[in-house]
Amino acid sequence: MDERSRIQEVLARYVRATDARDGAGQGALFTDDAVVRIFSKIADGSRAEVGEPLIGGAGVEFAVANFMAPHPPLGSSHHVTADHIIEVEGDTARLNAQYVVFEVQGTPRPDGGWPAGTVGVQGAVRPIEAGYYDTELRLVDGAWKITRHHVPQDLPFALPDAGPTPSGRA
Amino acid sequence: MDERSRIQEVLARYVRATDARDGAGQGALFTDDAVVRIFSKIADGSRAEVGEPLIGGAGVEFAVANFMAPHPPLGSSHHVTADHIIEVEGDTARLNAQYVVFEVQGTPRPDGGWPAGTVGVQGAVRPIEAGYYDTELRLVDGAWKITRHHVPQDLPFALPDAGPTPSGRA
Amino acid sequence: MDERSRIQEVLARYVRATDARDGAGQGALFTDDAVVRIFSKIADGSRAEVGEPLIGGAGVEFAVANFMAPHPPLGSSHHVTADHIIEVEGDTARLNAQYVVFEVQGTPRPDGGWPAGTVGVQGAVRPIEAGYYDTELRLVDGAWKITRHHVPQDLPFALPDAGPTPSGRA
Repeated sequence: MDERSRIQEVLARYVRATDARDGAGQGALFTDDAVVRIFSKIADGSRAEVGEPLIGGAGVEFAVANFMAPHPPLGSSHHVTADHIIEVEGDTARLNAQYVVFEVQGTPRPDGGWPAGTVGVQGAVRPIEAGYYDTELRLVDGAWKITRHHVPQDLPFALPDAGPTPSGRA
Repeated sequence: MDERSRIQEVLARYVRATDARDGAGQGALFTDDAVVRIFSKIADGSRAEVGEPLIGGAGVEFAVANFMAPHPPLGSSHHVTADHIIEVEGDTARLNAQYVVFEVQGTPRPDGGWPAGTVGVQGAVRPIEAGYYDTELRLVDGAWKITRHHVPQDLPFALPDAGPTPSGRA
Repeated sequence: MDERSRIQEVLARYVRATDARDGAGQGALFTDDAVVRIFSKIADGSRAEVGEPLIGGAGVEFAVANFMAPHPPLGSSHHVTADHIIEVEGDTARLNAQYVVFEVQGTPRPDGGWPAGTVGVQGAVRPIEAGYYDTELRLVDGAWKITRHHVPQDLPFALPDAGPTPSGRA
């Protein structure tokens, strides 16, 4: 497999891990000193960092376990990536991709069965987030690992303790 | 073209055929003994098989002709796949991809023309389904063909004759 | 990088340029004599051309500057492409891809901060358009450039001066 495909598959495994809330699997894709930063849109159209950077696979694993809500019953998600631009230079690489997150919520089958005439999939699929992954990787012992992962989101972000702050962060 | 790209294009042709309701074209992508199984989510979060497996390209063609609703006037669809993970081993391969299905419904132009001030695309694009394609392929006379195609859907599924059954299928 | 990946990245840069309303960047992906034609769905299910063809990178740049609405505050978009089929023959190539356009609209943070209990992304992501890119490219001085770009859209299209016309264009 060529390097470009191998790098793209790191992101394919990243989205499967995040959709499965598999923090250990997601963390294993990062180096120990990787830096992960999330940015949200603010009113002037620029972006502001959300919270503090996460550091390394351990930081990613902690964030998945503590900051990502578990899926409700019959709920799931798809982080879909597209239009990858990948530059490889020796044992380092940079990847830029678009992402859209879909939230999936199934309708539970009623105790007495589906009403007469009900046919096909039951539930809703809804896009809830979009943005870019701007990611740097390094070849470590033959495997591409993420060393830097910036996530410029397209939407404003409200932190739990949100309120007016001197830095104007949303 | 490398094997990975050739395999990914089998899926690209599969989604075009299914969106065009082209059963013959879709069936031609499968071996005669291919096994196709659809799985839906059930209440406990696991999956249950929807109906019986389809067998071979002929089975796929029959299903497209008999089980897929034709598009309404100005209606169409896009089965979009993303984040492919592909493993090739000699003349066999395994492909895993995310999919999201979009239903497209155009608004017919009124007999007297669009109302004043109406500009741009007229209609709706709506995600209605999502899940994974988990697919095995084999190189047959120089072409990759699907030998096994599992479709774990993310939503519960109501069959036309749905009702309580001993197997608890939804 | 193989030719197939290089060609796919032309489209990846195309969608970034169009989402950024970067007419110069988008135009630079086309040859001077490139022909761009947009087609919309009409009532009988066939397609009719929208307006006149655009010619060359200059035509594309003009169209982005004059025909594409700027994003509103906290607004953005993603043209997402998928399921590419690419055929390369010497220094020419043909690319077919699905596309879905997502419109993103953020909610501005209230002057007094987000209401208590507000957490996460604030705003909406909405698919608004879909169709295909049917594109021909040529290798010019070592770079793939678009020579022909057809965009069969899935939805009817209302032009600003729409009304009944002899050609029946919608």
